[in-house]
Amino acid sequence: MKAVVVESFKKFPVLKEVEKPTPGPGEVLLKIAGAGACHSDVAIFNDFESDPNGGLMEPPFILGHENSGWVEEVGPGVTGFTKGDAYLCYGPIGCGHCPPCTRGQDTYCENPQEVGFMANGIGRDGGMAEYMVAPARNLVPLGDDVDPVAAAPLADAGLTPYHAIKRALPYLDKGGSTALVIGLGGLGLVGVQILKALTGATVIATDMKPEAMAEAEKFGAVTVPGGEGQAAKIRELTGGRGVDAVFDFVGAGPTIALGAATVAQRGSLTVVGIAGGEFAWNFFAVPYEVNFSSTYWGTIEELHEVVAMYRAGQIVPAVEKYTLDNALEAYEKLRDGKLSARAVVAPHA
Amino acid sequence: MKAVVVESFKKFPVLKEVEKPTPGPGEVLLKIAGAGACHSDVAIFNDFESDPNGGLMEPPFILGHENSGWVEEVGPGVTGFTKGDAYLCYGPIGCGHCPPCTRGQDTYCENPQEVGFMANGIGRDGGMAEYMVAPARNLVPLGDDVDPVAAAPLADAGLTPYHAIKRALPYLDKGGSTALVIGLGGLGLVGVQILKALTGATVIATDMKPEAMAEAEKFGAVTVPGGEGQAAKIRELTGGRGVDAVFDFVGAGPTIALGAATVAQRGSLTVVGIAGGEFAWNFFAVPYEVNFSSTYWGTIEELHEVVAMYRAGQIVPAVEKYTLDNALEAYEKLRDGKLSARAVVAPHA
Amino acid sequence: MKAVVVESFKKFPVLKEVEKPTPGPGEVLLKIAGAGACHSDVAIFNDFESDPNGGLMEPPFILGHENSGWVEEVGPGVTGFTKGDAYLCYGPIGCGHCPPCTRGQDTYCENPQEVGFMANGIGRDGGMAEYMVAPARNLVPLGDDVDPVAAAPLADAGLTPYHAIKRALPYLDKGGSTALVIGLGGLGLVGVQILKALTGATVIATDMKPEAMAEAEKFGAVTVPGGEGQAAKIRELTGGRGVDAVFDFVGAGPTIALGAATVAQRGSLTVVGIAGGEFAWNFFAVPYEVNFSSTYWGTIEELHEVVAMYRAGQIVPAVEKYTLDNALEAYEKLRDGKLSARAVVAPHA
Amino acid sequence: MKAVVVESFKKFPVLKEVEKPTPGPGEVLLKIAGAGACHSDVAIFNDFESDPNGGLMEPPFILGHENSGWVEEVGPGVTGFTKGDAYLCYGPIGCGHCPPCTRGQDTYCENPQEVGFMANGIGRDGGMAEYMVAPARNLVPLGDDVDPVAAAPLADAGLTPYHAIKRALPYLDKGGSTALVIGLGGLGLVGVQILKALTGATVIATDMKPEAMAEAEKFGAVTVPGGEGQAAKIRELTGGRGVDAVFDFVGAGPTIALGAATVAQRGSLTVVGIAGGEFAWNFFAVPYEVNFSSTYWGTIEELHEVVAMYRAGQIVPAVEKYTLDNALEAYEKLRDGKLSARAVVAPHA
Repeated sequence: MKAVVVESFKKFPVLKEVEKPTPGPGEVLLKIAGAGACHSDVAIFNDFESDPNGGLMEPPFILGHENSGWVEEVGPGVTGFTKGDAYLCYGPIGCGHCPPCTRGQDTYCENPQEVGFMANGIGRDGGMAEYMVAPARNLVPLGDDVDPVAAAPLADAGLTPYHAIKRALPYLDKGGSTALVIGLGGLGLVGVQILKALTGATVIATDMKPEAMAEAEKFGAVTVPGGEGQAAKIRELTGGRGVDAVFDFVGAGPTIALGAATVAQRGSLTVVGIAGGEFAWNFFAVPYEVNFSSTYWGTIEELHEVVAMYRAGQIVPAVEKYTLDNALEAYEKLRDGKLSARAVVAPHA
Repeated sequence: MKAVVVESFKKFPVLKEVEKPTPGPGEVLLKIAGAGACHSDVAIFNDFESDPNGGLMEPPFILGHENSGWVEEVGPGVTGFTKGDAYLCYGPIGCGHCPPCTRGQDTYCENPQEVGFMANGIGRDGGMAEYMVAPARNLVPLGDDVDPVAAAPLADAGLTPYHAIKRALPYLDKGGSTALVIGLGGLGLVGVQILKALTGATVIATDMKPEAMAEAEKFGAVTVPGGEGQAAKIRELTGGRGVDAVFDFVGAGPTIALGAATVAQRGSLTVVGIAGGEFAWNFFAVPYEVNFSSTYWGTIEELHEVVAMYRAGQIVPAVEKYTLDNALEAYEKLRDGKLSARAVVAPHA
Repeated sequence: MKAVVVESFKKFPVLKEVEKPTPGPGEVLLKIAGAGACHSDVAIFNDFESDPNGGLMEPPFILGHENSGWVEEVGPGVTGFTKGDAYLCYGPIGCGHCPPCTRGQDTYCENPQEVGFMANGIGRDGGMAEYMVAPARNLVPLGDDVDPVAAAPLADAGLTPYHAIKRALPYLDKGGSTALVIGLGGLGLVGVQILKALTGATVIATDMKPEAMAEAEKFGAVTVPGGEGQAAKIRELTGGRGVDAVFDFVGAGPTIALGAATVAQRGSLTVVGIAGGEFAWNFFAVPYEVNFSSTYWGTIEELHEVVAMYRAGQIVPAVEKYTLDNALEAYEKLRDGKLSARAVVAPHA
Repeated sequence: MKAVVVESFKKFPVLKEVEKPTPGPGEVLLKIAGAGACHSDVAIFNDFESDPNGGLMEPPFILGHENSGWVEEVGPGVTGFTKGDAYLCYGPIGCGHCPPCTRGQDTYCENPQEVGFMANGIGRDGGMAEYMVAPARNLVPLGDDVDPVAAAPLADAGLTPYHAIKRALPYLDKGGSTALVIGLGGLGLVGVQILKALTGATVIATDMKPEAMAEAEKFGAVTVPGGEGQAAKIRELTGGRGVDAVFDFVGAGPTIALGAATVAQRGSLTVVGIAGGEFAWNFFAVPYEVNFSSTYWGTIEELHEVVAMYRAGQIVPAVEKYTLDNALEAYEKLRDGKLSARAVVAPHA
């Protein structure tokens, strides 16, 4: 079968013929419907000199950690799946038997070296191919009445903002609450939709691109442009109290600082974006009792909940579809910042 | 001034001239904008033979525990209020210094006998009059750009469903959740609006009156009529899993049974209505780990949150306005079941 | 190998020679250290006429759902286990891929008919034998410095009270809180220990047997005997406010009624015991906002937490050890109410 | 009456004769039992050049924000108090009618300028005097069977760690949890006691003074000295997972860094101490999903809970008692770091 393979760090991936995989014990072979191209893929083939995780994302492997597909074949010990049914695939894969894995949060597996990779598409073959093998428990049923191709990015670009927002819902569970979304790329725009659907908060959104702000407004956000007075305008929209829950989908120094300048006492400031910005925290730099944290991907159960929102029309991901033959073009555009929506490769379309 | 006074149990109230009150220490004199007529008022003058609370609702007193008004005068020790500003008034009044009172939940005051009454309009003079005195801390600012008359019922008919729903939000904080509202009178319809605003749940609603169900549908609910197959139809709308959070605004035997038959494992069943129905609970009569509970009114802070929702247009109470001179007519209609919306008496309209 | 087999309903189990099992994909073969004999085993062979779960506990099968053992062999696809290491085994086994299973709560598996049994020892061969096969993810490491035999009952008699208490911790997370344990058999006494270890609550305990109350006192409980004035004495110990969290390990009509008579407003009443008693719930029969619920077993992650408490000496289960050859004697005593501690069968002692 | 008055910033307080105060509406006159001397008093008279809060702590005023006393007289509108009964006094005083005040968290009053001061003893006359006036709702009954003098510091040195710990209890509500207390002065040692009483956590404690660590060990903590390998030793005590909840009672750069180096994924790091240290937060500087926050004092309801713990013997504050005539000596020692326990001035001893 054809697949997009990253052969080594600092080298653009190649489209090549590889062997079709076979599902092992507890695994399922998926015929890929869609595979989303994510910025972190670019980090793998473009930015890293070597593996920052001590061997957990060592090339070569097939890219693609946002995958959907149809059951093609099941491995030994697997029951309850029917050939042809559509599923979304939870990417992270842990040891399966440590406490985080037993609660379906493989992202925090306590035995990553036992496993040797992080996820389908990160250290282990992913979904930028005709077929992929994944653990049965990682599969979330999509149903047969929604588009499985457009669903693919939800496995990361949907689950990551969902998990960040779910952690912060206790700050928004009331009348009169306010949320701020900083950065309106793919994840940020999904974040706006999730906040509007799951809370009654006034959702304030900001980005440097006017067209991204226009998108956010379509989903019901109130937008505030960057530049002078930005923090003051945001605080004004909160009646002066500050924002109950800030989500920074960029994570650069200035965006974190904007969050710290606008968050309310007893609020929450979650940095989702991995731009790596620094913030000089001290007792008086953030209002009292603000929970300041990072967040990372999500759980299998949460991916079931994301699919429920997709099926209900509460999340509408913006995608551009590519064939597998054009997959490298999608990665070029992604690397060069020329995509305006998530690129999804649909090998069987 | 004129006021609607309940003079004794089992006797219809009278409209009579009484002395205009004076605010004591820590109190404010409100010029009444609106006073809502509530079913529990009818219980007081029509149903009870004597005081079920040991003297906490002993006539005579002025009715009206859902009140809004404008600051007219402040008592000793009160600061921060400006004459003419509009406020909604939290009804319950406790001792002020026990733990529940210090957290603003006077409903659960530990020293009710020290206080001698339950609330403005329940044992102590209420708002069915030209003026009323209330503790300063019970007042919630309405702002000057919304109708204070229509807001009055929110003090009970808004706060009660809000508090019930807020207690149950942890059951609804996810994609794919479902809620059931049983009974679509004033509180139930406000409940539907709050659920739609604060959660992403599919809100299922049921009532015996088709026109009430039509109202609920306008607010975004999916309705299921009574009769055969009702529970099965409700479960079907939840994908067979059952309802995450049931709110029974009736509280009769059959409505509680309906809730028990439709609630999901690990869900929540809250009885809000006080019809006093019985349910034969046993280990196997309700799914595992369902939290089954009653609920009662709410807190001052929550009333601030209800006002925020009213100001944001997320709660639109249905009201019929009456003059003070017609107040007794409103109570007659209420007693006789002839109102189709909350009657609000507006003495200065 | 030898095993205790229940051959049909209404028939006492037999000790017989069966084939030593082989671990399938994702499974581990355990050499049994200890297997606890539980009251629900007696229900299976003594009480039921037929399967109340539609085929999920159909004889014949080997009894024993509270098991510990040493890794003997691993099945296909299993990594991270070393022969001879000691583990406690989570009993319930679900489909593995529905939302409850992915969060490690197989008790609430959504596809039980796909699985065909409920747990090791309930519908599928359990641990009353020399060897047993279990899913790798169900195994919780015990470490090599604690007694694995005495640990066996923790898989149910430890996990069930732990889960019940963990659900209720939000009611006890404060100075001055109170808990009530009704019924001081094996689960109740473990419950007392968990409450004393994890909370600062005054733990009140009651039972009809004075020696059980003496045991509870050793663990730090304050005891109140049955009989006249029982509820009043319990309320007095709470300063009149009532109990924040009641745990009824019996579940008979009178014990549930005792809980309802002593629980505080906004408290919690959890029925753990399955005596099947009925309680006539109505709006005024229980204080406002009491969460009234059943509970059932627990999650894999919680079993890790129970093991941590056992290793820390916070839970000391009371056990009587039996050889496999004497296992039927243990079940006779259990059926006849002649055990004063949990019987644990240790086939290799 | 005699009182310890701070007359201006940068000037040591004086002991002088002032007029005995009179309780206003809603207020109570307390005959002071004990008044604790707190480090923040020293900041007021020794460190500040001017008021950092814009007029809320402007001298002159009587010091003392940790106060206990006996009811002497009540002001207009106050009921439910008996002369001679002992109370602990919640220090912060807000407007009383904003949302934080209605929930008893006057620390976060939204109208501080309306009030003009922060607390008894901070901007308004405090308890370093024979008598003090306080709002009735700020008083928490002590009962007549415990020492009210030793209780005084609980109003801040008890409530502050209690509130910090209560916010973090969700991180410690399980078997096998771990907590770290950095800094074993008065608040830190109370923190150790609260953690031991309310949780089952292994409490790790660290301080530069061996005698402080010896004290912590008496309360059940495991101690780790400073110096090389400190973070590694702490992590080792957590089984390598890191600490679930860190409490930094110092708040200097190195102590915050120690917390960040030892906290677990999904844990909590609370800076309680106001040394003002800085921490360069970035996405990779702290484990994923750690909630990093400050905290400040507490609520009235929580002070009721602290008193319950004091009455139960779960908190034993270490105090040195002084007469009012020796109060300035206590402040000298406090300023010069020569106290080994909380100094409490007992004007009527």
